[in-house]
Amino acid sequence: MTTLPRAPEHALLTDLYQLTMLQAYFDGGMTETASFEFFVRKLPEKRNFLIAAGLEQVLDYLEALHFSAAELEWLAGCGRFHPRFIDSLATLRFTGDVDAMDEGTVFFADEPILRVTAPLPQAQLVESRIINLLQFQSLVASKAARCALAASGRLLVDFGLRRAHGAEAGLLSARASYLAGFSGTATVLAGMQWGVPLYGTMAHSFIQAHDDEVAAFEHFARSQPSANTMLIDTYDTDAAAHKLVALAERLRPDGITIQAVRIDSGDLGEQARRVRAILDAGGLNAVRVFVSGNLDEYAVRDLVAAGAPIDGFGVGTRMNTSADYPYLDCAYKLQEYAGQARRKRSEGKATWPGRKQVYRHRDADGRVTGDLLTTADDRAPGEALLRPVMRAGRQLAATPALTTVREHAATQLGALPAALRGLDPAPPYPVTVSDPLHALADAVDQRLQRNPSPDDRRSRP
Amino acid sequence: MTTLPRAPEHALLTDLYQLTMLQAYFDGGMTETASFEFFVRKLPEKRNFLIAAGLEQVLDYLEALHFSAAELEWLAGCGRFHPRFIDSLATLRFTGDVDAMDEGTVFFADEPILRVTAPLPQAQLVESRIINLLQFQSLVASKAARCALAASGRLLVDFGLRRAHGAEAGLLSARASYLAGFSGTATVLAGMQWGVPLYGTMAHSFIQAHDDEVAAFEHFARSQPSANTMLIDTYDTDAAAHKLVALAERLRPDGITIQAVRIDSGDLGEQARRVRAILDAGGLNAVRVFVSGNLDEYAVRDLVAAGAPIDGFGVGTRMNTSADYPYLDCAYKLQEYAGQARRKRSEGKATWPGRKQVYRHRDADGRVTGDLLTTADDRAPGEALLRPVMRAGRQLAATPALTTVREHAATQLGALPAALRGLDPAPPYPVTVSDPLHALADAVDQRLQRNPSPDDRRSRP
Repeated sequence: MTTLPRAPEHALLTDLYQLTMLQAYFDGGMTETASFEFFVRKLPEKRNFLIAAGLEQVLDYLEALHFSAAELEWLAGCGRFHPRFIDSLATLRFTGDVDAMDEGTVFFADEPILRVTAPLPQAQLVESRIINLLQFQSLVASKAARCALAASGRLLVDFGLRRAHGAEAGLLSARASYLAGFSGTATVLAGMQWGVPLYGTMAHSFIQAHDDEVAAFEHFARSQPSANTMLIDTYDTDAAAHKLVALAERLRPDGITIQAVRIDSGDLGEQARRVRAILDAGGLNAVRVFVSGNLDEYAVRDLVAAGAPIDGFGVGTRMNTSADYPYLDCAYKLQEYAGQARRKRSEGKATWPGRKQVYRHRDADGRVTGDLLTTADDRAPGEALLRPVMRAGRQLAATPALTTVREHAATQLGALPAALRGLDPAPPYPVTVSDPLHALADAVDQRLQRNPSPDDRRSRP
Repeated sequence: MTTLPRAPEHALLTDLYQLTMLQAYFDGGMTETASFEFFVRKLPEKRNFLIAAGLEQVLDYLEALHFSAAELEWLAGCGRFHPRFIDSLATLRFTGDVDAMDEGTVFFADEPILRVTAPLPQAQLVESRIINLLQFQSLVASKAARCALAASGRLLVDFGLRRAHGAEAGLLSARASYLAGFSGTATVLAGMQWGVPLYGTMAHSFIQAHDDEVAAFEHFARSQPSANTMLIDTYDTDAAAHKLVALAERLRPDGITIQAVRIDSGDLGEQARRVRAILDAGGLNAVRVFVSGNLDEYAVRDLVAAGAPIDGFGVGTRMNTSADYPYLDCAYKLQEYAGQARRKRSEGKATWPGRKQVYRHRDADGRVTGDLLTTADDRAPGEALLRPVMRAGRQLAATPALTTVREHAATQLGALPAALRGLDPAPPYPVTVSDPLHALADAVDQRLQRNPSPDDRRSRP
């Protein structure tokens, strides 16, 4: 696959406080090893599970991390930092370790999906971009998985580039929705970058630019003889379906077939039924019916439940922006520094200290039954979900193909209890905290009481 | 100002249907002039106005538009397009005209903020990215303006990079919020790229990495003697304020002053009152109090209304994602092709045909009183808001400084009726449709009835 040169990652895509703290760490020689973990504190409303996504971009970012000459020049001129510190940034690279859940893995509140272990300044600097990458793709993958579960195997295409929050959001949401179960995307660059399958139809403006609707259909079919979806709701949907039946007959001798129709307005289920009947009566049983327009997982579920003869859905804005809940309550927390486990003790916001591991348990049928949250050094039954993916700043394995990630996500979703796969709120999936982790928390609390230690609240710039 | 090399714009950052339509236009020789306009159909709930933003990025995109060798190679290999069409893309540049409202201008439903007039294929191809750029920045600027109005002149800093939807969203929301009235951002790259003023504090992890809270404060103050904000809610907020009073005295002989404190948890108004009293009693009247944590325009308004002694706010996720309404109901519609005005007539979605202009009226005090939506050729009293900004693919003037845009936005907000500047829903601002535009719509309707013309519904991929 041809790939584009990657958009450059900028070390200055970070919060100012990371740099001011780094200068203080530099001044104080505070470079001992720190472990930070990324986790979600609380699942958003209407989410029974989350899907881990964004690791590929995080690892690429860490591996490439450096300050460019232009960035160093700007830092030198901004008046906030001293020359020795800026000199130290010129040679800064990420030399640490990363352990993470595979992309596509289902996860729940309090479970770390990524741990960075590195000299404190390195692990601190990368906080902003790591959260930025993991929270967005996990947010979208989780919303998209709900759409995919609702679509029950029907074609499901990401249409959301235009209302995504910028270029990267458009691209990464195409990626995240595909890995979570979408069939593909309309965003061409995502096809080129990751091989995400591409789907496209036509716009009303195409019909409008022709004097006659049939002429527009024929023009498009001759230009795209093997991949054409005709937008049929521009004038009168039923009439357009009849026109297509006649046109198909006329195109047949030339070996051109009409592939699909799209309906983008009105009562989609009712219109799909009428169009299906017209197409079938005209012998166009193979022509698929595709619908779009303000769809989300609930609209898809309702259309499927009503038995509407719909073969595919275009889902855009509401998926790409996770419109009902456009962010995750997530954090990247210091859990250990200089060999000591750390714990946040804010009221209602206590976190589990130290480097952690998640073990997932299954029944005889392979269905997951619950997770154990424990210390990283503990050995427990079940599958350990956090695996080493980077050591000393280098990725341990080649990036898995996105199709592999997508298969993993499908397997993960398939192994969930049925209630969790539904769109309605289900009883929470059981996540148990291990005895060793309880013991570690008690030990940290006792240390904090002896020598009141900082309350590691959610970091903010 | 040092600037970074711009992230490359990719012509393939578009929807697949744009390319399939372009191939059909190519095959049919359909290259006459088209005018498309970008507008918002309906203001989101809880928005009394919108702020135009994103024009700078749109113009840069259009001026640089081209297919790279890698993109052309990928297109040739993807099997959807024929060689003569791909050859034509190799030389495709944007050679059209753009008329637009200045960035920072207040606008309302149905008012075009940008018009592209170009050969049909060019004007069609750029739809996806133009919407992507204009909708996001206008969305964020509009939300940010509400925060700025609520903050009534207090310091207001964008903290949202980490939960913005990707890198570009983080950067562009720093830009959009600054132009709409924020004081600055924590996102360093936005400072480097556009000169947005930078603000930063410290994270709880900084305190946590030290054995003692006072040692952490002192360490930070000595490293940042002239720009330090101390995070004081890590252990006990009141105790930390008292410690700072003692520390300030110790630092004074060295010429180091503590600039500000930040409170990130609890009842922000109540804590600010207590901290203010402690600081004042200790002679630290000049130390400012800054708060953060799940803030939006309502929380800011309530803290200001309660008279809390707060000098500044850090506002993140809810502003950067426009969390209560994370998208605009917007469109980029074909309004004229080959010299004929076009009109969309969908039920409940009719649009005004042809190329349009917006005139804004003011009373003797300069306060705006209403807008007139009319045809582009009409000459009416008031200020014409759409101005020529690009001709034959070239920008007509240098990009205005972001500070100039910000001043314009402030003037625009200041000229709004008071009710519209409030956070609560106000009676809609009057936008009148002119007689000439009514006449044009009637003429188009009559033409459509004679020869039923396409219903130019919202374009979708």
